[in-house]
Amino acid sequence: MRAEIITIGDELLIGQVVDTNSAWMAERLNEYGIELYQITSVHDERTAIIKALDEAFGRVDIVLTTGGLGPTKDDITKQVLCDYFGTHLIESASVRAHIYDLYKDRPDVLNRLTATQWLVPETATILENRVGSAPLMVFNKESQLLASMPGVPYEMKIAMDEQILPYISRQLSAIRNQIIHRTLQVTGIPESSLAILLEDYENSMPQGLHLAYLPKDGIIRLRLSSYGELTEEEMTYWFAELKRLTADYLIADTDEPLEVIVGRMLKERHQTISTAESCTGGKLASLLNKHAGSSAFYYGSIISYDNSVKEHVLGVPAALIKAHGVVSEEVVRVMAESVRKILNTNYSIATSGIAGPTGGSEEKPVGTVWIAWATPEGTTAECFHLGKLREQITDRACMKALIGMIERIRG
Amino acid sequence: MRAEIITIGDELLIGQVVDTNSAWMAERLNEYGIELYQITSVHDERTAIIKALDEAFGRVDIVLTTGGLGPTKDDITKQVLCDYFGTHLIESASVRAHIYDLYKDRPDVLNRLTATQWLVPETATILENRVGSAPLMVFNKESQLLASMPGVPYEMKIAMDEQILPYISRQLSAIRNQIIHRTLQVTGIPESSLAILLEDYENSMPQGLHLAYLPKDGIIRLRLSSYGELTEEEMTYWFAELKRLTADYLIADTDEPLEVIVGRMLKERHQTISTAESCTGGKLASLLNKHAGSSAFYYGSIISYDNSVKEHVLGVPAALIKAHGVVSEEVVRVMAESVRKILNTNYSIATSGIAGPTGGSEEKPVGTVWIAWATPEGTTAECFHLGKLREQITDRACMKALIGMIERIRG
Repeated sequence: MRAEIITIGDELLIGQVVDTNSAWMAERLNEYGIELYQITSVHDERTAIIKALDEAFGRVDIVLTTGGLGPTKDDITKQVLCDYFGTHLIESASVRAHIYDLYKDRPDVLNRLTATQWLVPETATILENRVGSAPLMVFNKESQLLASMPGVPYEMKIAMDEQILPYISRQLSAIRNQIIHRTLQVTGIPESSLAILLEDYENSMPQGLHLAYLPKDGIIRLRLSSYGELTEEEMTYWFAELKRLTADYLIADTDEPLEVIVGRMLKERHQTISTAESCTGGKLASLLNKHAGSSAFYYGSIISYDNSVKEHVLGVPAALIKAHGVVSEEVVRVMAESVRKILNTNYSIATSGIAGPTGGSEEKPVGTVWIAWATPEGTTAECFHLGKLREQITDRACMKALIGMIERIRG
Repeated sequence: MRAEIITIGDELLIGQVVDTNSAWMAERLNEYGIELYQITSVHDERTAIIKALDEAFGRVDIVLTTGGLGPTKDDITKQVLCDYFGTHLIESASVRAHIYDLYKDRPDVLNRLTATQWLVPETATILENRVGSAPLMVFNKESQLLASMPGVPYEMKIAMDEQILPYISRQLSAIRNQIIHRTLQVTGIPESSLAILLEDYENSMPQGLHLAYLPKDGIIRLRLSSYGELTEEEMTYWFAELKRLTADYLIADTDEPLEVIVGRMLKERHQTISTAESCTGGKLASLLNKHAGSSAFYYGSIISYDNSVKEHVLGVPAALIKAHGVVSEEVVRVMAESVRKILNTNYSIATSGIAGPTGGSEEKPVGTVWIAWATPEGTTAECFHLGKLREQITDRACMKALIGMIERIRG
């Protein structure tokens, strides 16, 4: 079974908004055994929307649209869908009651534009949008269906999980493929060398098994995929082979973000972590506490962007900074040991580097990053050269910091 | 002049990767007066790629593809483009020399798979990819053109800025529309009420002028757009009117991120800022030092996720936490004043809230966030209720913190 997503909104096509919805939706669809065949982003423009609908219905069983459902003039999706499916808007008492309830503490929102939100296409099935005013609409077109939902990410997510996916599941209970993805993560080998290492493996893979290479921030994710052609057992065999062949470079045998792996290892061991960050500026801290449950192992951080903070809060001697520079093994080691002591944690990570665009020198060019890990067994530090662009350097530094932490917790 | 982007890669359609490239490319195209008409994401699959190419060439002048250019088996874009344009691969001495130079310090990369990277389509114009091994390819199809580049974001960005956009500019020097976008940001008014406030304005707008509402994290961005129909002067007039009508809710009359506005205000005043974060966990710090030049005003942060850090580093009395709870006006005020003093900055912001999914109570449900701002004039605090989802709560808390800071710096 195949689906397409049509995202509707000028903001995506002028670069004002990044489409994070589609990736989330793709993952969920795959869990339900539905393959996402294409994603199309179009303007809030009748012709473009209708063309996209026609093309999508020519290819797939399920069309999902996001966006264009607000009460303002620029949003035209509901009216275009009415025209496309040959129906018209009628008042829905239940949507009206829901909106009154939603805004019971905010009577200023119950104005005449909000009132347009309880007009719904007569032939559509209306599902409840628990957290917003735009109704979720499902249209049937012979054996195909279209579901329309808001583009606001958290409204879309609740709509998909609570209403649209269960609805699709009930309606389209035909045979679905079992889509299986298995991912592992490696580091320390160039992509082309990895492909040569895996050449015999790839040549011996059965029909229907796909291997993809996804390099990012110094890590290569290797993904095996099957769209209904291999069994769980066959996938387990091929994945085990892949693990065996890449063992020297393996960081993880799941697709989990590295900070989740660090968090799980620490929770299992009832241990804690803190960070002292200069160039990463809180990015590493944000990663470590991004996921629910992080308060069990993440205590806190001292972000010492300015040297005064390194000296007065982390106690890095001014003479040490003067002698070696802030981007040095000596300074980053003191930062790590100091934050571990001040925050009283089992582990700590410290970063100091030149994120650019200015501040580089011949000896220490932009992209130079020192990272130190303080553990119950002692402190170690490494120097990295992580590229030329500010965001790339700090993202890669976080990945290096997490890889180093995983290795050191494993011991 | 119109363009379309075709992103090629299974990783986008199974949700493993979020497409951040398209938004960036859209913005750049607009600056060059090129309208992005559609974005399409397809699998690494011959039929899907060819169908997308055909459809795109039926609609626009310029087709840009990203992805599928790696040396590994899953990447098929180069071969599919050869077939589509009826040409074949030949060896390029200049690409070969470039790749040898690129990997001169890493001979392990110069293996036989990397060698496939200097095979290029005979009829394509090859542009140099300064930072990677995949050549940039441009194909001409009568008056239309296609440019193919890697999907790795930093390679794509350098390719677009240094090679592809200048090339397009030279080749397609036909009359281009002047695309103008003007954006302002408001807060504290529901979207529907704002639309009612602007109803007469919208009804009087001339043909070719578009107004869009973009609500996110408690801020509504209002964008005026013209695709070649209005002059700069006309846009300036309509934008000034929009500013006048929304003056009571206006935060900014540009599309700049709020942290950039805070940074500029502080730099102009030679003032500095620090943060003490609990629920936002370093996200606010990361925003404040995200952009180049932030070391001029951002000193550092104390991320006090665990209560021990609030007590021992920020000096919040245990009795105060016991009496009022960590999510309270009393605690957040001490956090802000303390970090301002310890880090010796002019301003500081402190956050403490319940990001969930657990930890809420009847009195303080998930989403409750206290924010305090310490300034040379004194300390103030506010309580917010920011939704139910962890990421939404912390993102919105950062926006509230920045809005409050802008207001207080303005005085």
